Amino acid sequence: MRVEAVDFFYLSMPEVTTEADGSQDALLVRVAAGGYVGWGECEASPLVSIAAFVTPMSHGVCRPVSASVLGREIENPDDIARMSAEVAYNSMDLLQAPHTWSGVEMALWDLLGKARGEPVWRLLGYGRSEPKVPYASVLFGDNPQETLERARRSRAAGFRAGKFGWGPIGRGSAREDAEHFVAAREGLGPDGLLLVDMGQIFGEDVDRAAERLPALDAAGALWLEEPFAGHAYEAYGALARRLDRGVRLAGGEAAHNVHMARHLISIGGVGYIQIDCGRIGGIGPAKQVADEAAATGVTFVNHTFTSHLALSASLQPYAGLEDHRICEFPAAPKPLALAFTANYVERNADGEIAAPDAPGLGIEISPDGAKPYLRDVRIEVDGRVIFKTAKLT
Amino acid sequence: MRVEAVDFFYLSMPEVTTEADGSQDALLVRVAAGGYVGWGECEASPLVSIAAFVTPMSHGVCRPVSASVLGREIENPDDIARMSAEVAYNSMDLLQAPHTWSGVEMALWDLLGKARGEPVWRLLGYGRSEPKVPYASVLFGDNPQETLERARRSRAAGFRAGKFGWGPIGRGSAREDAEHFVAAREGLGPDGLLLVDMGQIFGEDVDRAAERLPALDAAGALWLEEPFAGHAYEAYGALARRLDRGVRLAGGEAAHNVHMARHLISIGGVGYIQIDCGRIGGIGPAKQVADEAAATGVTFVNHTFTSHLALSASLQPYAGLEDHRICEFPAAPKPLALAFTANYVERNADGEIAAPDAPGLGIEISPDGAKPYLRDVRIEVDGRVIFKTAKLT
Repeated sequence: MRVEAVDFFYLSMPEVTTEADGSQDALLVRVAAGGYVGWGECEASPLVSIAAFVTPMSHGVCRPVSASVLGREIENPDDIARMSAEVAYNSMDLLQAPHTWSGVEMALWDLLGKARGEPVWRLLGYGRSEPKVPYASVLFGDNPQETLERARRSRAAGFRAGKFGWGPIGRGSAREDAEHFVAAREGLGPDGLLLVDMGQIFGEDVDRAAERLPALDAAGALWLEEPFAGHAYEAYGALARRLDRGVRLAGGEAAHNVHMARHLISIGGVGYIQIDCGRIGGIGPAKQVADEAAATGVTFVNHTFTSHLALSASLQPYAGLEDHRICEFPAAPKPLALAFTANYVERNADGEIAAPDAPGLGIEISPDGAKPYLRDVRIEVDGRVIFKTAKLT
Repeated sequence: MRVEAVDFFYLSMPEVTTEADGSQDALLVRVAAGGYVGWGECEASPLVSIAAFVTPMSHGVCRPVSASVLGREIENPDDIARMSAEVAYNSMDLLQAPHTWSGVEMALWDLLGKARGEPVWRLLGYGRSEPKVPYASVLFGDNPQETLERARRSRAAGFRAGKFGWGPIGRGSAREDAEHFVAAREGLGPDGLLLVDMGQIFGEDVDRAAERLPALDAAGALWLEEPFAGHAYEAYGALARRLDRGVRLAGGEAAHNVHMARHLISIGGVGYIQIDCGRIGGIGPAKQVADEAAATGVTFVNHTFTSHLALSASLQPYAGLEDHRICEFPAAPKPLALAFTANYVERNADGEIAAPDAPGLGIEISPDGAKPYLRDVRIEVDGRVIFKTAKLT
């Protein structure tokens, strides 16, 4: 089989706000080869990611992503890895390339799994898909009372783990933050797993981040996520050295290649490495990070704030790692993220989830569900149309 | 003054080839504020960089670059730094943002310099613009004879330093590469400064890179540039530890933030840090790298393969560093790179160059020269035009 077509569908809510909610838009990717169709999803900035696929070439190592994909052979996982290496080299100077390629790579795994009648996790070498404990990922409330209510709602919805992030946290004093941590703990209950996400708010300021540690330990938080900028490995490392035996550091969603994830482990000293398959270049590089994490005693966790297609993709790289139990679950996404899939990764009676035991990623796309959110994109250079939204069927 | 308008002009050669020549296209940036106009240039992928400026917002930390620029106050260098920080945070999830912002940032410095009647290097705190030894940057020939001829032409054109890169190098055996190094040395003459650029060809393979070291030392090469992928700091470090007292490592053009350059120094052990202002986020971050390099005994070098506007911008961050003597000079760019500026950074009687002693970047734009290369871009979302090429005057 050869890659015959790659189409991108830009979906968005009618109104997009500045809240840190990544489910306000989505870039759905459809790949066709040999009579099969695979689906993937890019994590962010649909228009820019589309442009990175169709842009005219700038020079030999600044080629559009399409140049390393269209017409290429797709028979087995090695073909996907070969395309990954080609994209990395040929689109070296195109910063957006990993984001664009991520969704295409996912779709290629989905297609290959469907062609073989196997789930992607089996193609990755896993014997079974282990159950994971999903955490509800929500934003901190504007005040502690709101945080408390959100935590209670998570718990009432059957989640024993809850992550709270962004919103006011890190913008005021350590004491104000502490009140939110206490509220989150109270809402989750004493046995809930409490996870806190700082959304890079401290830049590289280790002291400001460290001021929050006593309150995090007092609230029994399991991890402190992304206190610093994505590349600030030394700041991570310095904070890691100040930790007691309580809270540990988590990070990795900003990794757009395996190197970045590796540095967060080796220099940053994170205890949890969080990988978004829609960003790191897809499922293959994420699996490589999972292997390295498992070998070094670091826990792998998916990063997913969007659809159940992205959720299934993000579970695959560590589906068979029994001891890596926690997973992010988009508990309250915007309607569009639920609208464009026809099925979901369902929680079982214990409230746990697992990567689907179905061909490919095991998620069906609902064109009718997607259509109300579909945006019509058209890009022309010198009057020539280099992109226009295809028919979504 | 407030930023009133930012316009992008995509220029390209009629035919763009896969050779590693970054001067085949250009993205010129025009910024207007308070009656002044400043010009900058983004390094790569014009269409994608334009998209990153105009794209609809995805969420709070995936905003278009425009959101942190348009309407902002621009009175002094701190205002530029503040916009840089805003872009970094607000466009966190937009990978292409640093490439886009780089050209805008440059244009803001140019504008501020013109408004104050001062060269940018003076705004950066330097007392004078020191002369630099330009090296001619050319591609290796397809065979050693061609490399020899290119080296002779460089020398004949008055360059006592020459950099050779890409082409066949690293793709065959170490012995084949050695013949090119010998040819380059012969063409440059015994007193010429010989620089070798591997164009990331070895990925992370330290052994394959190390095989080239004896021949590089024998040819008296000053540096070995970019043997590995941009994030492969450990590979750089491992190779650095294998160096004798001859050739040293160079790298940094891939750095799209200060962290990456810092890691190449601290982990990668480079002796020369090469910064492209069209990529690292502009002149401000490049100056920060120059300061850190100077403090740690590493030599700062510009990376510039395009126009004299980009060249002037790239000289500013280390204009006043007397001991950092070498600079990259685009000796054989494509015609478009010379066409869109009305003046150039000229070599003096000693064959040396310096950042212009003129307001801003000291480079005039030639709209008439640019026009034959101008490409007409139009981007629509839901029938609304979010970008169309403005009038270039």
